[in-house]
Amino acid sequence: MHKTLIALAILSSAAHADEGMWMPQQLPQVAKQLKAAGLKLDPASLTKLTEFPAGAIVSLGGCSASFVSPLGLVATNHHCVYGSVAHNSTPERNLLANGFLAHNLGEELPAAPGSRIFVTKAVTNVSNRIITADVAKLSGKQRGDAIEKNLKAIQAECEKDAGHRCTVSSFYGGLEYYLIKQLEIRDVRLVHAPPEGVGKFGGDTDNWMWPRHTGDYGFYRAYVSKDGKAADFSKDNVPYVPQHFLKLAKEGVKEGDFIMALGYPGRTNRHRLPSEVAFTFDWNYPAFVKASAESLAIIADTTKDNKDTALKYASQVAGINNYYKNRQGMLDSYAGSDMLARKTAEHEALKTWINANPARKAEYAADIEAVERLIAQRDAEVKRDFDLERSKPRLLNTARMLYRLANENTKPDAERKSGYQVRDVPRIKSSVAALVRNYDEKVDKALVLNFLSKYAAQPAAARNAAFDAAIGIKDGMGKAELQAALDQLYAGSKLGDAAERNSWIERKPDDFKASNDSFIKAAVALYGPDLKSEAEEEELGGKLQQAYASYMKAKIAYMQSKGQAVYPDANSTLRVTFGQIAGRTPGSDGTNWKAFTTVEGVAAKATGQGEFNAPAAQLKAIKAKEYGKYADPKLKSVPVAYLATLDITGGNSGSAALNAKGEWIGLAFDGTLDSIISDWDFNKAMTRDIQVDLRYILWNMKHVDHADNLLKEMNAE
Amino acid sequence: MHKTLIALAILSSAAHADEGMWMPQQLPQVAKQLKAAGLKLDPASLTKLTEFPAGAIVSLGGCSASFVSPLGLVATNHHCVYGSVAHNSTPERNLLANGFLAHNLGEELPAAPGSRIFVTKAVTNVSNRIITADVAKLSGKQRGDAIEKNLKAIQAECEKDAGHRCTVSSFYGGLEYYLIKQLEIRDVRLVHAPPEGVGKFGGDTDNWMWPRHTGDYGFYRAYVSKDGKAADFSKDNVPYVPQHFLKLAKEGVKEGDFIMALGYPGRTNRHRLPSEVAFTFDWNYPAFVKASAESLAIIADTTKDNKDTALKYASQVAGINNYYKNRQGMLDSYAGSDMLARKTAEHEALKTWINANPARKAEYAADIEAVERLIAQRDAEVKRDFDLERSKPRLLNTARMLYRLANENTKPDAERKSGYQVRDVPRIKSSVAALVRNYDEKVDKALVLNFLSKYAAQPAAARNAAFDAAIGIKDGMGKAELQAALDQLYAGSKLGDAAERNSWIERKPDDFKASNDSFIKAAVALYGPDLKSEAEEEELGGKLQQAYASYMKAKIAYMQSKGQAVYPDANSTLRVTFGQIAGRTPGSDGTNWKAFTTVEGVAAKATGQGEFNAPAAQLKAIKAKEYGKYADPKLKSVPVAYLATLDITGGNSGSAALNAKGEWIGLAFDGTLDSIISDWDFNKAMTRDIQVDLRYILWNMKHVDHADNLLKEMNAE
Repeated sequence: MHKTLIALAILSSAAHADEGMWMPQQLPQVAKQLKAAGLKLDPASLTKLTEFPAGAIVSLGGCSASFVSPLGLVATNHHCVYGSVAHNSTPERNLLANGFLAHNLGEELPAAPGSRIFVTKAVTNVSNRIITADVAKLSGKQRGDAIEKNLKAIQAECEKDAGHRCTVSSFYGGLEYYLIKQLEIRDVRLVHAPPEGVGKFGGDTDNWMWPRHTGDYGFYRAYVSKDGKAADFSKDNVPYVPQHFLKLAKEGVKEGDFIMALGYPGRTNRHRLPSEVAFTFDWNYPAFVKASAESLAIIADTTKDNKDTALKYASQVAGINNYYKNRQGMLDSYAGSDMLARKTAEHEALKTWINANPARKAEYAADIEAVERLIAQRDAEVKRDFDLERSKPRLLNTARMLYRLANENTKPDAERKSGYQVRDVPRIKSSVAALVRNYDEKVDKALVLNFLSKYAAQPAAARNAAFDAAIGIKDGMGKAELQAALDQLYAGSKLGDAAERNSWIERKPDDFKASNDSFIKAAVALYGPDLKSEAEEEELGGKLQQAYASYMKAKIAYMQSKGQAVYPDANSTLRVTFGQIAGRTPGSDGTNWKAFTTVEGVAAKATGQGEFNAPAAQLKAIKAKEYGKYADPKLKSVPVAYLATLDITGGNSGSAALNAKGEWIGLAFDGTLDSIISDWDFNKAMTRDIQVDLRYILWNMKHVDHADNLLKEMNAE
Repeated sequence: MHKTLIALAILSSAAHADEGMWMPQQLPQVAKQLKAAGLKLDPASLTKLTEFPAGAIVSLGGCSASFVSPLGLVATNHHCVYGSVAHNSTPERNLLANGFLAHNLGEELPAAPGSRIFVTKAVTNVSNRIITADVAKLSGKQRGDAIEKNLKAIQAECEKDAGHRCTVSSFYGGLEYYLIKQLEIRDVRLVHAPPEGVGKFGGDTDNWMWPRHTGDYGFYRAYVSKDGKAADFSKDNVPYVPQHFLKLAKEGVKEGDFIMALGYPGRTNRHRLPSEVAFTFDWNYPAFVKASAESLAIIADTTKDNKDTALKYASQVAGINNYYKNRQGMLDSYAGSDMLARKTAEHEALKTWINANPARKAEYAADIEAVERLIAQRDAEVKRDFDLERSKPRLLNTARMLYRLANENTKPDAERKSGYQVRDVPRIKSSVAALVRNYDEKVDKALVLNFLSKYAAQPAAARNAAFDAAIGIKDGMGKAELQAALDQLYAGSKLGDAAERNSWIERKPDDFKASNDSFIKAAVALYGPDLKSEAEEEELGGKLQQAYASYMKAKIAYMQSKGQAVYPDANSTLRVTFGQIAGRTPGSDGTNWKAFTTVEGVAAKATGQGEFNAPAAQLKAIKAKEYGKYADPKLKSVPVAYLATLDITGGNSGSAALNAKGEWIGLAFDGTLDSIISDWDFNKAMTRDIQVDLRYILWNMKHVDHADNLLKEMNAE
């Protein structure tokens, strides 16, 4: 993630990456392409979410995984079980460093608190129950509220079946809604993870990179109560017996082979309007990058003589850095691309198609116009509030949150704003408590002053009158005056004191109103205006949902008229991507990429320490060419990882890769650098994703970690 | 240098690397190969060391370089001018970070003290003057002494021409001797170096690696007195007008093109006997690696609680680490190779050829037998002394050096042992003074105890009686007794005190004899036995020279009988290597290597800091595709570096790469990982060397550093 994207002028690639994160039920629409790619199964057989193979695919919430044995054994990436390995590590028993293998069920360890395995039980199209005839007539905030109400009701009704999590997900920007009912397995146990020197081999240095030699795999097991219900951890629980589990491929894969991956991609932006692309890449990301650089410089400067303060801000610095580089990477790719021109041309073609037919024009034209206008409005608001949002002292935001909580507390729990309900209070408390560890007045004031100076330099009409009044901003204030105003503001509050802050949790609104604390006074003053903006946002949201859904409907119809299927943007629901195993020409500058790496490459990179600390036992086996049955006939070695043309993104980590017969052949775990921009614009020539080869997993389990019990359970022997 | 070698089982490469570091006068012997490779010049034209192009090639002593303008401008690698850039850097004017450009002669800066440019004026075969008829009759130490005497006389006579350095170099292990007369230019000035972010781009991370993006170039200028003689720095000096300088290629290079490099490779071991290979790789390097690992662990352990001591040993640790990894890298390569079997078969074939003919048998057979026997003897001694050499306390070695100096001081300077002459005293003084910064008794004692335990565990017959007596080693001493003996030894000396140490420099031998200091007493006791071993070594050396020269003569005759020319091992004299520009299949695991990298790769690797800190101005030019006339028509970008099949090693750094017409096309600066073992065994399939492309040098000078004055001087405009 730390290197910028490669802009390559000349491309000459035989294999093109295959765009599309398809909902399983859509696969018959691309049956021809699936067959052409080499699928040997009936595409229709892939559409049934609760049958094989999709029925073997599970979500860990943030990661993808799959059942690989009749006893609830779950395979996923090492980085998806990492938290559980860390949770069970002690200085005396360093599982991260040494790996972990349970030799029997009794040795399995509870996963990190909160670990879940979600097994999909039913998927139902509930579009008509969300956008009922009544809802269809509404607009703005009323529409948004009604959708929210229907959605909550459907989820609540579904969740009456104890042990299940039910989620209504929106597809195509609110055009369609699906209810996904999942068994929420709460007793998750760690079964096996290789040492970090295998599972995280290459570390940050190799992240996003090819050639790659990471053995990014690990195993959980799902446990349920004896009567098969989801249950909290108990010694009496038994392994969950899945309805379906993956069969291991008998033969290894090779370049050119068909491959598909099933998993839960998180979020993409492929259907955005050209105006959204332009706003994001021409204004929002550049502004974000600039603000991030300023913030990093200010934090560095104000903490440079104080190690304690530097430590307090270390995590924020890492976070800013990560997004800073991600956004800058996208901007670099964007600068060398024709993305905006292409998206603009596509959008114009859609509008031409709509306007060419009176019925279509009548149905869509006004909504297209509306969606463009509403997005322009939203973007203008983002722009307007950019410096304002960064001009609010952290303790003022804390005071606002606490006063909102006080107000919401006066209502019955069900009517409280989401985020301020009874179940949210522990989170609020811990975020207030955390200020001791991640807040410093000097740093905060310097950050605020930087952005407040920009904000205050705008004419009054462009500013926020309520905010100005609350913290004392007047026309024409220079930096020195702003500094003085901030000094007074910070000095007038006792919220810098942890005990004082804590004392305000769940106090009454009147207590706040009576306070003379400067931040609390400002929070009380901003409360009314804050509620007003929130209502305006909801009004805009309701309008956008309606218009956006119509735009997507038009787009789908248009694409269908050209014989092309449209997949929805990723939304953390199950998707299928297919393509082929393929190297890339060119690779990085100065290289071409072969499709496979081998264990010899592990030995070549191994340094005996740090990120490249391959275990001695593994290096010994490689040196002795102890390949067992896992050598590839052409490579004459054990393959470690391979490139494919699949379309994946964050959330796909741990996705099972399957061959043309639906047999398990590896785990997707990363993309190459070009994947960053692919979330907006899929680059057919350059995108490659990276799988760990099942043969490497099995070889390492057999010849290095001696996980014979698991190999037997997976019928790998 | 920090990564181990890649052992690759399958090779399928179109271009094979071209073994051979040819003496220029040998080139007519490989005229056919040169023509086949594409040379457009007459090979005979390359043989004249003082004419074009060889006449433009100079040595910097450790690096190679060449004249590239009529005004003595010298092009070489950035890492070859690095010391001079560092020498002229201050915190206020950081030339390393920012680079340096003299806009006119007046702005040029004196290079680091001791910088030299050696211009070859004459090369003469003096074999018959070294091995005269009288010397040919001698053997052993007498032979060695006689050779040394002739050599010194020839050099001294030649150096009567003031301002010249004359060196008699031995070729083919003493079969031939050449007198090389060089103008020793002492007024060397720094003209231009790009910022480290260009010249050292990629740092240690990219060292030995491909793809590579290092702009490893820099410029010196040679100055002489107004009458054209070598002179110390003076404002009155003028640029040296070379007889020849390189012309810049008008056209860029492409994959498949002929390439040759002229430079001064340091040392190779290609003609070693199989027994030397076996001893080195089966015993010596493994023992070295093991001892290095032990030493590193002991230093780490004994310095872990003391930052000052750790700092004292930091440089030694870096040194041990560097060789440790280099040797381990070679061992890894050796393990996967048939090197010993091949060398053995070749040697047996040579012996068969010798024995097949009575005249040949009479001339060579006894010498071949002798060389095998003598080498076995030398190897046995190395083995015998391995632990002994590591068992000597540093202060004991210091005392031995000081006592030797005292004894040599009693002779006229010319008769003193080399290393103990008047001119050597400053060096000895500074090495004694340096102990304050790099010696700690606790660490030293722990290191000595480790190796002394191994040494002392041998039977008395395998040990060194003089050493045992001097420091009190007796049969059957255990570790505790050895520790006690060392404690007594160290406690009995005051040499741990800097003032005390210094006071012994240039004292009289009788002072040493009268001393009760334990290390000085031991040094006095070891003096006689030390001289005896030295004489024995010299005896062996003389015998080896005679037999080795005969072995090489036989080998050359044998190879000639098969129509093959033999080049001598590298010995820091001018050599020519030729081949072609070529990528490699396979590259590193998971990649194939293309022949060229481009500036886009610089931008992709750039991180804005550390080893990948490309200058902002350069990144801007790359982003704007401001290629000027330096873009390659096929790459559609400016090439940065390229791979070729040349045979180079340390010392070749800065070698000019020339095209088929003898025009300048770049600078050799590194090899890929396989180069490490190539010093012993040239791997035709895998060896590639790396050049910085002249187009990148010129592009960066023009579009980033605006060195228009130098471009004009080189006729590049």
